[in-house]
Amino acid sequence: MEINPACPLPIQRYPHVLLAHGGGGKLMHQLLEYVFGPAFSNPILDTRHDSAQFTVPPPGRVALTTDSYVVRPLFFPGGDIGSMAVHGTVNDLAMSGARPLYLSCAFIIEEGLPMETLWRIVGSMRDAAQRCGVQIITGDTKVVDKGKGDGLYINTTGIGAIEHSLTIAPQTVQPGDAVIISGDLGRHGMAIMTVREGLQFESTIESDSAPVHKSVLQLIEEGISVHCLRDLTRGGLASALNEIAEAAGVKIAVEQKAIPVREDVHAACEMLGLDPLQVANEGRFVAFVAPKDAERALQILRNQEVSAQAVLIGRVVENAAPLVTIKSAIGASRILDMPSGEQLPRIC
Amino acid sequence: MEINPACPLPIQRYPHVLLAHGGGGKLMHQLLEYVFGPAFSNPILDTRHDSAQFTVPPPGRVALTTDSYVVRPLFFPGGDIGSMAVHGTVNDLAMSGARPLYLSCAFIIEEGLPMETLWRIVGSMRDAAQRCGVQIITGDTKVVDKGKGDGLYINTTGIGAIEHSLTIAPQTVQPGDAVIISGDLGRHGMAIMTVREGLQFESTIESDSAPVHKSVLQLIEEGISVHCLRDLTRGGLASALNEIAEAAGVKIAVEQKAIPVREDVHAACEMLGLDPLQVANEGRFVAFVAPKDAERALQILRNQEVSAQAVLIGRVVENAAPLVTIKSAIGASRILDMPSGEQLPRIC
Repeated sequence: MEINPACPLPIQRYPHVLLAHGGGGKLMHQLLEYVFGPAFSNPILDTRHDSAQFTVPPPGRVALTTDSYVVRPLFFPGGDIGSMAVHGTVNDLAMSGARPLYLSCAFIIEEGLPMETLWRIVGSMRDAAQRCGVQIITGDTKVVDKGKGDGLYINTTGIGAIEHSLTIAPQTVQPGDAVIISGDLGRHGMAIMTVREGLQFESTIESDSAPVHKSVLQLIEEGISVHCLRDLTRGGLASALNEIAEAAGVKIAVEQKAIPVREDVHAACEMLGLDPLQVANEGRFVAFVAPKDAERALQILRNQEVSAQAVLIGRVVENAAPLVTIKSAIGASRILDMPSGEQLPRIC
Repeated sequence: MEINPACPLPIQRYPHVLLAHGGGGKLMHQLLEYVFGPAFSNPILDTRHDSAQFTVPPPGRVALTTDSYVVRPLFFPGGDIGSMAVHGTVNDLAMSGARPLYLSCAFIIEEGLPMETLWRIVGSMRDAAQRCGVQIITGDTKVVDKGKGDGLYINTTGIGAIEHSLTIAPQTVQPGDAVIISGDLGRHGMAIMTVREGLQFESTIESDSAPVHKSVLQLIEEGISVHCLRDLTRGGLASALNEIAEAAGVKIAVEQKAIPVREDVHAACEMLGLDPLQVANEGRFVAFVAPKDAERALQILRNQEVSAQAVLIGRVVENAAPLVTIKSAIGASRILDMPSGEQLPRIC
């Protein structure tokens, strides 16, 4: 599967990344010249300064977010570390209702990484950035010695423009708010784990890794009273709801049977003793909206492909000792706790 | 040497960082609550959103820069990875003449890192940020399994306000420009190498790691025609001058005897077969200024502690095939080339 055009000759001469590719000398310049430069080219990056320069549109309100990606393996069904490093940071910006503008991108490469692997991942980042409408405007490359990394770690830091006047935060959450999730849960975590554990199912479980900013911006544009947004990454829905309940000082009640989990994901979770509500997603978020807007919010979300399966899963029921409860299919209510140990290391 | 107040109890319970500290659950929240939160506290960080929100002062022109720090060892004479991760990114912003405002900070921790080490490094970052007048407003923590890291890697991404109307870039460099460096060279690289190689000298070689933004902002404030700035990190002076000569299409001529290198640094370089002009610094930069302003620029720099040893080392001599020449003490001129291989891995 050839994703990118042929690797240029000066790069082909080095089939593996050397320590010198991070040393500030000629080899690092070749990497900039032939790999990163052409892939990410845009007027800001192309100036090649120590820092990227741009003007923030008035009134100048921005969101800044950072994430390192250490997922293992680098390629998995439905994505790879490169596209994920773009989607994840775009999604973090979206959770403030910000319009993603620019990313920085810093690579920590383990000596010996096949150049072809770097090449493919950079191509994947380029494509993901184009799809998201963001530009990668500055970067950094470090190479660490063999055995001191795991192929590749990527940090992306994103900046976005906040063009709305909402306060999208747990503190805005109120009793009565509708709790909506943007689609089925557990796919990213299980896509990774089935590869790592060599599990076989009839169909491949693919990661849900995808950018969600268009769905969020559409909600805001249509005037939905969005009170809080959170992407359902590490710790999954359970962690997100508990964090919000804690910060808002409210009780949140959700219904198990309303939460979509694909059958193969469910089976994989059972096999590994995991709760799909605690598993990481990479293209899913929870939205707390004013009750009057719940139905319209669902319609808007369902019109976007990435959130076509959006559903109402519960309500904020009262100001109380912070708590998340879940009602099972047979009607019994239990506490949905925050995950405590490490379920799935290096899932993102 | 106790840098910080005693580690809080919930953290003391875990003398080493576990995979679960990066898992999005309770242990990660304890790290945020008791380590990162109190150290970096400021109104923007304290909102604890997925992204930090702030308003860029008009006219909204900003600089963005990113760097990962993978230096080994984590602590070295004159600094540590934490203070360096703050200074280095502040300095990259300064090289655009930007006033540093905010940093993001992302940790990639190797499972098993002593909690006390993390605690000290976070304290060092806090102190460095305070000294630089910047705020750490958002962050990320990942933990990778033992043997897949080297204790700790830190990414900092910085945003600064550009309040001048200069074009500080290689393209602005002109024949006649004065080439000034802000102090003696080679100390950071040699501080690291003497520790790694176990070399002994009469005095300890300490890293020059320091923030240089005040010196730069002072030059701009006093109306110096600053044409180009570059910090002398990986690849040292040799790399910086060659990059600028290449991008500007000029010949740069410098004099060896004008370039200050401490005697112990010189001795260490000789012992290891290194050229101090190719060795990394962490608190040194080169400035290209209009010839009429050269003397005044030197005075301004010498009034700031970090650049008290600033000296004129040469001139831009002509538009020509890009080239850097250096005249030795006995008068012979040779080409100063860009380093090609990897001299000093993981120096920053």
